[in-house]
Amino acid sequence: MILRFGVVGTGAIGREHINRITNKLSGGKIVAVTDVNQDSAKQTVETYQLDAVIYPDDKALIADENVDVVLVTSWGPAHEETVVAAVEAGKYVFCEKPLATTAAGCMRIVEAEMKQGKKLVQVGFMRRYDTGYAQLKQVIANNEIGEPLMIHAAHRNPTVGENYVTETAVQDTLIHEIDVLHWLVNDDYKTVQVTFPRKTKNAHGKLQDPQLFTIETIGGIVMNVEVFVNCKYGYDIQCEVVGEDGIAKLPEFPSVVMRKSEQLSTNILNDWKYRFMDAYNVEIQDFIDSIAKSGEPEGPTSWDGYIAAVTSDACVKAQQTGEKEPISLQERPAFYSEHILQNN
Amino acid sequence: MILRFGVVGTGAIGREHINRITNKLSGGKIVAVTDVNQDSAKQTVETYQLDAVIYPDDKALIADENVDVVLVTSWGPAHEETVVAAVEAGKYVFCEKPLATTAAGCMRIVEAEMKQGKKLVQVGFMRRYDTGYAQLKQVIANNEIGEPLMIHAAHRNPTVGENYVTETAVQDTLIHEIDVLHWLVNDDYKTVQVTFPRKTKNAHGKLQDPQLFTIETIGGIVMNVEVFVNCKYGYDIQCEVVGEDGIAKLPEFPSVVMRKSEQLSTNILNDWKYRFMDAYNVEIQDFIDSIAKSGEPEGPTSWDGYIAAVTSDACVKAQQTGEKEPISLQERPAFYSEHILQNN
Amino acid sequence: MILRFGVVGTGAIGREHINRITNKLSGGKIVAVTDVNQDSAKQTVETYQLDAVIYPDDKALIADENVDVVLVTSWGPAHEETVVAAVEAGKYVFCEKPLATTAAGCMRIVEAEMKQGKKLVQVGFMRRYDTGYAQLKQVIANNEIGEPLMIHAAHRNPTVGENYVTETAVQDTLIHEIDVLHWLVNDDYKTVQVTFPRKTKNAHGKLQDPQLFTIETIGGIVMNVEVFVNCKYGYDIQCEVVGEDGIAKLPEFPSVVMRKSEQLSTNILNDWKYRFMDAYNVEIQDFIDSIAKSGEPEGPTSWDGYIAAVTSDACVKAQQTGEKEPISLQERPAFYSEHILQNN
Amino acid sequence: MILRFGVVGTGAIGREHINRITNKLSGGKIVAVTDVNQDSAKQTVETYQLDAVIYPDDKALIADENVDVVLVTSWGPAHEETVVAAVEAGKYVFCEKPLATTAAGCMRIVEAEMKQGKKLVQVGFMRRYDTGYAQLKQVIANNEIGEPLMIHAAHRNPTVGENYVTETAVQDTLIHEIDVLHWLVNDDYKTVQVTFPRKTKNAHGKLQDPQLFTIETIGGIVMNVEVFVNCKYGYDIQCEVVGEDGIAKLPEFPSVVMRKSEQLSTNILNDWKYRFMDAYNVEIQDFIDSIAKSGEPEGPTSWDGYIAAVTSDACVKAQQTGEKEPISLQERPAFYSEHILQNN
Ligand SMILES: [Mg+2]
Ligand SMILES: [Mg+2]
Ligand SMILES: [Mg+2]
Ligand SMILES: [Mg+2]
Repeated sequence: MILRFGVVGTGAIGREHINRITNKLSGGKIVAVTDVNQDSAKQTVETYQLDAVIYPDDKALIADENVDVVLVTSWGPAHEETVVAAVEAGKYVFCEKPLATTAAGCMRIVEAEMKQGKKLVQVGFMRRYDTGYAQLKQVIANNEIGEPLMIHAAHRNPTVGENYVTETAVQDTLIHEIDVLHWLVNDDYKTVQVTFPRKTKNAHGKLQDPQLFTIETIGGIVMNVEVFVNCKYGYDIQCEVVGEDGIAKLPEFPSVVMRKSEQLSTNILNDWKYRFMDAYNVEIQDFIDSIAKSGEPEGPTSWDGYIAAVTSDACVKAQQTGEKEPISLQERPAFYSEHILQNN
Repeated sequence: MILRFGVVGTGAIGREHINRITNKLSGGKIVAVTDVNQDSAKQTVETYQLDAVIYPDDKALIADENVDVVLVTSWGPAHEETVVAAVEAGKYVFCEKPLATTAAGCMRIVEAEMKQGKKLVQVGFMRRYDTGYAQLKQVIANNEIGEPLMIHAAHRNPTVGENYVTETAVQDTLIHEIDVLHWLVNDDYKTVQVTFPRKTKNAHGKLQDPQLFTIETIGGIVMNVEVFVNCKYGYDIQCEVVGEDGIAKLPEFPSVVMRKSEQLSTNILNDWKYRFMDAYNVEIQDFIDSIAKSGEPEGPTSWDGYIAAVTSDACVKAQQTGEKEPISLQERPAFYSEHILQNN
Repeated sequence: MILRFGVVGTGAIGREHINRITNKLSGGKIVAVTDVNQDSAKQTVETYQLDAVIYPDDKALIADENVDVVLVTSWGPAHEETVVAAVEAGKYVFCEKPLATTAAGCMRIVEAEMKQGKKLVQVGFMRRYDTGYAQLKQVIANNEIGEPLMIHAAHRNPTVGENYVTETAVQDTLIHEIDVLHWLVNDDYKTVQVTFPRKTKNAHGKLQDPQLFTIETIGGIVMNVEVFVNCKYGYDIQCEVVGEDGIAKLPEFPSVVMRKSEQLSTNILNDWKYRFMDAYNVEIQDFIDSIAKSGEPEGPTSWDGYIAAVTSDACVKAQQTGEKEPISLQERPAFYSEHILQNN
Repeated sequence: MILRFGVVGTGAIGREHINRITNKLSGGKIVAVTDVNQDSAKQTVETYQLDAVIYPDDKALIADENVDVVLVTSWGPAHEETVVAAVEAGKYVFCEKPLATTAAGCMRIVEAEMKQGKKLVQVGFMRRYDTGYAQLKQVIANNEIGEPLMIHAAHRNPTVGENYVTETAVQDTLIHEIDVLHWLVNDDYKTVQVTFPRKTKNAHGKLQDPQLFTIETIGGIVMNVEVFVNCKYGYDIQCEVVGEDGIAKLPEFPSVVMRKSEQLSTNILNDWKYRFMDAYNVEIQDFIDSIAKSGEPEGPTSWDGYIAAVTSDACVKAQQTGEKEPISLQERPAFYSEHILQNN
């Protein structure tokens, strides 16, 4: 069985997924595309030599009987409407973050999905598919470090553009930690507080950089997360989980070990694209395989998208107030109960 | 375009490649299979739900017009005949090591291929497709460490079975270094000498373990290669290239970093299968993509298979004599001139 | 010239310093000892075969013309009186932490010392003499990582006894970070806030463990310091300084690298004594050499002792209130202006 | 008790030991010096403000009743005569390498010492006092890696001067491995063979660089030792012991860990002086303490000096012949039986 994808949004990330599904992975193909810029849609079909229908809009694409999955890679504000429509049409959805730009919007998707009676939607939080994070999750689930008590994490970029402002640090950067950290420890967030260290000379005028987030969970885990997007030295993702019996830390991204010029060194990436390249591939392959196997995607759910939206809002508020802000989630529906990780 | 594979040999490695091509990679499919054990062939078709013809033997499979590529995963002594027949039929061949069990057999394949006027054959030396080795090759080609002078390498297995004897250390184990090391430094072998350290108590009666190979190249590079197949602690592949200006070393296989029980540790694999899992996938995907793109496979050639056979024979002789033995290769035909690695 | 020490307090730490000065270092000797337990004093003289007078109390010892330096290793509450008396007698003082148990007490020592017109007192904060911290200080002073923006630090012990309570985490444990961190970045503290994660099951009833301190400096550096004294896995000191242009981190304590039982590992110490053994030796040798060379000790001053006391009080208050508490230091007298580190 | 040293040879290494004993260590002092260059001797006394007699020659110095230990730091060819004379006078001797320039010369010292009926002589092989090597020795003695089977070692210098020729690689460089490796595994050498890789462009005309030594022991251990003295990148000492049950490796020399300019790095030393600075201090302090405690030095003996001389001669011969050369030691006298290392 080949899963047939209709793509809404043929910008950079859309094209990467199209290329991935067409030329790298197994079990999926692109049968339809649309974009608000129809030329972009056409050009994409040509570039990747797709045997795909070009639709004028998402509605038409969703209506195509040959489309099994709607891949949502349009710009964020358009996500909600497309996803709701696709879900109501009973289609599978793979939606890049954010699921919706508001918590209320995410909740509408959650409700639409529950009405369909089965999971249809996966949100594009690819970190869970990174080998390192997956190992970390397993180590915790295996009780190898006892109950988690603290997480020390950092998300560093070499530099960012002028349109990246203080809130962007939450919405585009911290958002990845927001998703992956609660998943790692299988806990829910409770409060967040932000501290602003002295601003680096390398950040432009409107951006507070770096930022330190202190997030507490319902279960009492405290997470220190550094976001530093003009760190200059490279793209670097750190995550260390301190448990009652030991500590587990994400591995460094591997590279050849050099002895040269009085230094023993390995390379640090300068571009985020390489860091999670494999994770993107595994993410989409797993989406395809899960649907083929069980009829449902098994990755980040609409509920995870909702958690991300609520938490993101609280983090932005905490940036503004300087106070400890609550992260108030509605009760998790049984529909979205956590997978229990197999502890072999 | 989908590359259509006919598989000769449905044992363990054959099935892994079938699974890989069917369920993980893009651009290939299995259309025919055969095995001396026809039940194995049938079972394989069922297990992987293949839409494939089951042939009584390799000749019949090769004759199928729908077969573009013959994937040779039968037992070693049968390789030569299948490969020659496939090449003479103008089919592409992916042949697991060894290409043939003798240097003369490899030479017959080389000649058959040259007669066809284009490269058709790739030998399954997957290490070249490992990210670490590929980086190492690039570092050398970029002149980051100057001219290579020495290589220190080790190939360690936790344990081996009773049928693994002293020569097996060359034919099944060192063979991977034999292929990858000359490729790394773009040089040809000249001599080999073997030293046997005290035998470990963990090796069975007929096996000398560990063994130390000293290999010299035409260009004067000296390679110390340790083969130790009852090292107990894990499956571990080490490779360090010492150049005039610096040293480059294969990265450790990445794993979560633990602090526990008074130890700072990472895991070492205990099974070779995991170590080069990605390399196998990249290897076959690259084989498919290269043929689609340029009409020729771009991986290890028949000539590389011939080099492996000649070198392997010399290494076994060196085990027996204790002397420095010559590695005498015929002159490389222009047909097999080395790809020049792009230095950027 | 041999510096003649009189030791006040012959408990464990006193004896270690006596042994150090007598048997490991150069340029000092023990000429007098006293202890509230006179038997302890006598036994110490015998054990180390000292040619030393045993005095009934600190006053008598200070009055001995042969005593150049008073080494204060009595229990904390007795320090202030001994140090003031020694300073007023014009003697050098090496005083183990705390300099005094209150900020006011430290201030009285500061004033007594300033009245003498020269530096006489060094406080036993040995971390500054650790090779790793010294390198870290140099890296920062050399501007190799730009202006420091954040510090991520951790102080972990495998376990503590029943008499170690929540405040002890500040007074006996964090106190070392309090001294070394402001010295590292040459800045003064401004506020502190404490977060208590879920308590580990391994801590006894009266102890909150772990604890997370967020300390801000006048210059805007934010320091996250984890104190975790029942971490089980070992004694582990971590310190990472994030600067505008790069990051510098304390090295791991070195140990043989093992490949065994599917693990690549190094040892983590289980006892703090080994971690800073060399630092203690360097500390006392430097004290002796500085006095010999310049007539003044060049290590942590009375003012550093005062900073530690004020900061420690604020940290305890922050433990109790859960709020961000100010760290209010009096203005630094010119007498205690910082050494400018030579940036070669 | 203070051990009184008479120093024969006030060149660079002599002065370093004088400074060490006078200003860093405990229990020793310099009471006499001599040098063939009397001005050097005088200047040394002034520089270090020694209360020491200046003698016209070693004979006069040895005759001084106040001299307990003769510290031999003259040039190599003069060592034998001084050491024999000192031993015959019943004095302790600390002699820098080489003990004598010939095996026969070493044997004369061995015989003179045995005639005195107690150990008097220690040879300045300081590596045994390096923390890393000491840990490695302990790991082996504790049977943590099982029986040693192989050693992979490297001795690399950034560059050497014009007077350093091919034999110097044995006599000044490999000599340290020659001493420390047999001590590590408590075994004796049997054969050596040398392989010359392609010569680096960075070596001057008369020097073959790098060189690879393959040394076999009586017990069947095979040691690959790389000597590369124009490696450019730094001073780097590597030693990895492969045992039946695991592998133990010397730690890297510790340094601050940097993240900067897309690199994760630590520093490699460029000067050998820093690498074993602590080892030199521990070496001499242990020499002093052992004599104080047991009346005998407990470090490398005259017999170790003899082993070094015989092995060094065989290595030079192997450089010349290209063949496997025997290392023929006389039978070890019971007088020099190995210390049994305490396994706890
Ligand atoms: Mg994503
Ligand atoms: Mg293969
Ligand atoms: Mg102290
Ligand atoms: Mg020495």
